[in-house]
Amino acid sequence: SYCTLNEGLGKVLRYGAYSDEVIKRLKWMENLLAPLLKQALKLHGPIDLKTMITQALQMGDEGHNRNRAGTSLLIRELAPCIIQTKFSEKEKIEVLKFIDSNDHFFLNLTMPACKCTLDAAKNIEFSTIVSVMARNGTEFGIKVSGLGDRWFTGPAGIVDGLLFPGYTTEDANPDIGDSVIAETAGIGGFAMAAAPAIVQFVGGTAKDALNFTLKMYEITAAENNIFKIPALDFRGTPTGIDIRKVVETGILPSINTGIAHK
Amino acid sequence: SYCTLNEGLGKVLRYGAYSDEVIKRLKWMENLLAPLLKQALKLHGPIDLKTMITQALQMGDEGHNRNRAGTSLLIRELAPCIIQTKFSEKEKIEVLKFIDSNDHFFLNLTMPACKCTLDAAKNIEFSTIVSVMARNGTEFGIKVSGLGDRWFTGPAGIVDGLLFPGYTTEDANPDIGDSVIAETAGIGGFAMAAAPAIVQFVGGTAKDALNFTLKMYEITAAENNIFKIPALDFRGTPTGIDIRKVVETGILPSINTGIAHK
Repeated sequence: SYCTLNEGLGKVLRYGAYSDEVIKRLKWMENLLAPLLKQALKLHGPIDLKTMITQALQMGDEGHNRNRAGTSLLIRELAPCIIQTKFSEKEKIEVLKFIDSNDHFFLNLTMPACKCTLDAAKNIEFSTIVSVMARNGTEFGIKVSGLGDRWFTGPAGIVDGLLFPGYTTEDANPDIGDSVIAETAGIGGFAMAAAPAIVQFVGGTAKDALNFTLKMYEITAAENNIFKIPALDFRGTPTGIDIRKVVETGILPSINTGIAHK
Repeated sequence: SYCTLNEGLGKVLRYGAYSDEVIKRLKWMENLLAPLLKQALKLHGPIDLKTMITQALQMGDEGHNRNRAGTSLLIRELAPCIIQTKFSEKEKIEVLKFIDSNDHFFLNLTMPACKCTLDAAKNIEFSTIVSVMARNGTEFGIKVSGLGDRWFTGPAGIVDGLLFPGYTTEDANPDIGDSVIAETAGIGGFAMAAAPAIVQFVGGTAKDALNFTLKMYEITAAENNIFKIPALDFRGTPTGIDIRKVVETGILPSINTGIAHK
């Protein structure tokens, strides 16, 4: 699986911004960030992202909207290899500071990791497990393991969340993005109980965070064998959305996401 | 306040080991680690440890026996300045790998930070707040704010915890060390609710971790204004042990500590 590198928050291409500042950053990412990381990764060897996500879940991340632990663990892991690259000291520092400045850097590694996990669940005969979810700002689409590559779509939802002062839901674009692959794999909104601090960002109480996760056990097939939640005595995160359970209970997957302006 | 740099776990001087391996590591710390960090810190400027501890408490650390988040945040913060030092690439990598290899590295920064906080609470007339706690393997001593510099001591306790296979409490030395300054300042055993993952290490359930913290509110004077616990809806950690409340309730401070061999 592939993913872009995370540009950060604010004016960024993935939210539709295309000013000089945005293009300049993308060029910097193309000309320095990507080649430097490529070299560092070659020196390091493969990174076991699944284990890193597992650790981040034990450090207050839910892996979708809170990625401070994941990004910290990644920096820790890569810093010695970043030093070993053939780039200049100034360039190495620039790269480290860029990653440090953006706690969501890790999200764009989590997404393809989740996609890889889910690809193994594709095309299993009679399986009613959701293997992909994605939103494009207009439609919300899912694929189901036993139903091949067909997209089942409906209208994209309006996100319930905190808005910048002066904006209303009228300004919000319907749900957009492929980051919901996180929830499809059992983290993000499904692992809220691991990240009580996120309620500061999305609203609600720590108890709500716990309840989001508990509710998801009702529509999933299993408890994750590696993603564990300390606050639930290391119970595995609810994993594998079963469309039959969604239909039976009427409970929709809980998704942590950002809100894009129209 | 001052503190040594953390040597790591296993055979280390602070647990009484003094083999060649231990001395060699201490020499390396003296000749490379310390001077390199000194230079990096000069380039960086002061680090706001209190804020960093606050963040670590929101990332599953309790700040005494679990320091994975704190150590990660420190590496993140210092890595760019480590690169800027005048040391060789090899030396910079050695230092980063050493810190990365020891999640307790941050503890030895937390301890003096806690001591600084508590020094401000010393010698306040009529105050019954504990300003220092420490153990020396034989006695447990406290100082009380309104009672000046006098040590009040009793026998050091035997620690209740997990032992390596083949060892019994007979092999354990009574409680030793000054790291209990963490609990005196409202973290460590007092912030267990922030670190449910620690029960894997000390035994018990996530609910026990929560209860340890809740109990400490009964013997403390205040809720911390900066150290907050996400799982308790950002309630401040129980802070400032009041000897009157300890006497009234019979509840002893809950301390997270290691067990040293005799």
